[in-house]
Amino acid sequence: MRDQNYGVIMAGGIGSRFWPMSTADHPKQFLDILGTGRTLIQQTFDRLCGICNPENIYVVTNEGYRKLTLDQLPSLSSEQILCEPDRRNTAPCIAYANLVIEKRNPDASIIVAPADHLILKENVFLELAGRALDYALSKDVLITIGIKPSRPDTGYGYINYETTGEGFVKVKSFTEKPDIEKARQFLSGGDYSWNSGIFIWSVKGIQKAFQNSLPEMYKQFAPGLNLMGTSEEKGFIDKVYAECESISIDYGIMEKAANVEVINGDFGWSDLGTWGSLYTHIPHDSQGNALVGKEIIARNSQNNIVHITGEKQVVLQGLNDYIVIDYNKTLLICKKEEEQEIKKIVENLSKND
Amino acid sequence: MRDQNYGVIMAGGIGSRFWPMSTADHPKQFLDILGTGRTLIQQTFDRLCGICNPENIYVVTNEGYRKLTLDQLPSLSSEQILCEPDRRNTAPCIAYANLVIEKRNPDASIIVAPADHLILKENVFLELAGRALDYALSKDVLITIGIKPSRPDTGYGYINYETTGEGFVKVKSFTEKPDIEKARQFLSGGDYSWNSGIFIWSVKGIQKAFQNSLPEMYKQFAPGLNLMGTSEEKGFIDKVYAECESISIDYGIMEKAANVEVINGDFGWSDLGTWGSLYTHIPHDSQGNALVGKEIIARNSQNNIVHITGEKQVVLQGLNDYIVIDYNKTLLICKKEEEQEIKKIVENLSKND
Repeated sequence: MRDQNYGVIMAGGIGSRFWPMSTADHPKQFLDILGTGRTLIQQTFDRLCGICNPENIYVVTNEGYRKLTLDQLPSLSSEQILCEPDRRNTAPCIAYANLVIEKRNPDASIIVAPADHLILKENVFLELAGRALDYALSKDVLITIGIKPSRPDTGYGYINYETTGEGFVKVKSFTEKPDIEKARQFLSGGDYSWNSGIFIWSVKGIQKAFQNSLPEMYKQFAPGLNLMGTSEEKGFIDKVYAECESISIDYGIMEKAANVEVINGDFGWSDLGTWGSLYTHIPHDSQGNALVGKEIIARNSQNNIVHITGEKQVVLQGLNDYIVIDYNKTLLICKKEEEQEIKKIVENLSKND
Repeated sequence: MRDQNYGVIMAGGIGSRFWPMSTADHPKQFLDILGTGRTLIQQTFDRLCGICNPENIYVVTNEGYRKLTLDQLPSLSSEQILCEPDRRNTAPCIAYANLVIEKRNPDASIIVAPADHLILKENVFLELAGRALDYALSKDVLITIGIKPSRPDTGYGYINYETTGEGFVKVKSFTEKPDIEKARQFLSGGDYSWNSGIFIWSVKGIQKAFQNSLPEMYKQFAPGLNLMGTSEEKGFIDKVYAECESISIDYGIMEKAANVEVINGDFGWSDLGTWGSLYTHIPHDSQGNALVGKEIIARNSQNNIVHITGEKQVVLQGLNDYIVIDYNKTLLICKKEEEQEIKKIVENLSKND
């Protein structure tokens, strides 16, 4: 493990599609959504510790989640938790982390990972990420980790890449959430992978990319370099966030930069974006039910996702293809194919608050 | 209201079909199953107070429910709660009440009612019951209250009666839970009503009926007459219950006696035997959902019965024709047409205990 490896965990999201477990007060990344005993952010931190010294790992999150983050990752020093005053999508989040890391080590190599993804084959991932961290120091590239697609999923972004050889290959274009027809074409083409949203670059490389593709944002952040780690950091960040654009790193940089490369892997990845995507990662009973809970009895019931927190006893009789979530003070019973409605439910509920 | 009117509330049942709300520890009659603010036994007591002096009303229940009964009906004296040491069906329950009432007033007229039935049109019921209590003193008859059937329900018992005239008419025969074909025939015949299980007779009349139809049981109970209300009552009852037959009043007496008459009424009655039968008595929303609970949101969901106790927020998305009960530590989600499975669920659960 090289000392110049740094990790950035993006943990500012709300995860409303995982309501009612995930709420604005306690979003998905802070939940043990798989029932494994570790929350998603804890799993992400544990994983990055396989390629970065723990003191080189930063969490960027919202001010409101500072306490949650410290509670769940008590080994972090408070300097390792970068708190955003507002939600401004991923580009400002990365710009902030860049400053902090650049000040500590201008030769750093950085892996940026969302806090709420699932990776089952950790060793495969770590081997691949380690290679990418080295590669990013040897060549001026922005690396995105691609996932070999297993189905024409319309919920993911797709990367079209040049097919010359193995390993790191040049990216031709990105396509966000295609329709099913397009997704099928992508799969049959063989030169597409899913965009995992996990990025690797040198701090020099990403700063150059900001200068080129988001020059305004670069100019806003750059003057703060020497304020990082001082008492003026917070005031500076508050000011920049009040002014800066809200834009994703994908749209702001990756889709524009000419030096983007992808390395494709197959390491049991899921963005856990929906209950349906979680379903494929929980063990099923013989009736195809994915059941998480102390005592769940499924009679004449098939292909349900049931997630019960607490001591509740649950009996299903004649229920098929539903999502049943009992969490805290809320019970959700949702037909699987109507899962996209959950976001709307949450929006409506918050309006009524 | 006549002083010789007496009421007997039968409150010893377990009500397993209303699981998970109704359990052996806290059965249906002690629940506010309609969300009205009064439990079923309280409603039954309130109702009988319209035709009997409150001190003339007895509750026959299991020893284990004495405290529940006193908690819910605090105006009862402990002498008004007759506790059975074992479950022996309805004939011994009535034989016990007969002794107690006969000792207090050998000229009593008695109405016997299950504790867990619903009656919506109380005035209609009281007028009819009052007439029957008088009639039972004027003529040596056993009266059962019939319900004008509105559908070929296969869950009820049916009374076939002579069609000569209005009012009290002679019963020809009883049929327990017919198949759907038979039930349809009964309805089209016009000389059938549902058996409500509410009976009216004089204490003299019912004691004579026991002598004729259940002579063995009569002989077992009769010697206890003068022990009622004394310190020897409990010992006597314990001994008789250990020896006596377990048999229903319907099978033991009503189906055999030659002097049974029925008076048919239409007073919004239900035996609340199943969640499905409850459904027809709870207000529905525009989607046909019967929702009892603090905050239930039904989206694209129709014809469900939802009964939520406590502060839980519930969201249904794309659910049709289900029973959803969240009560205490149990959540039941059951397809309406598989409701008959609930009894089996409870049996299996108790086996595992």
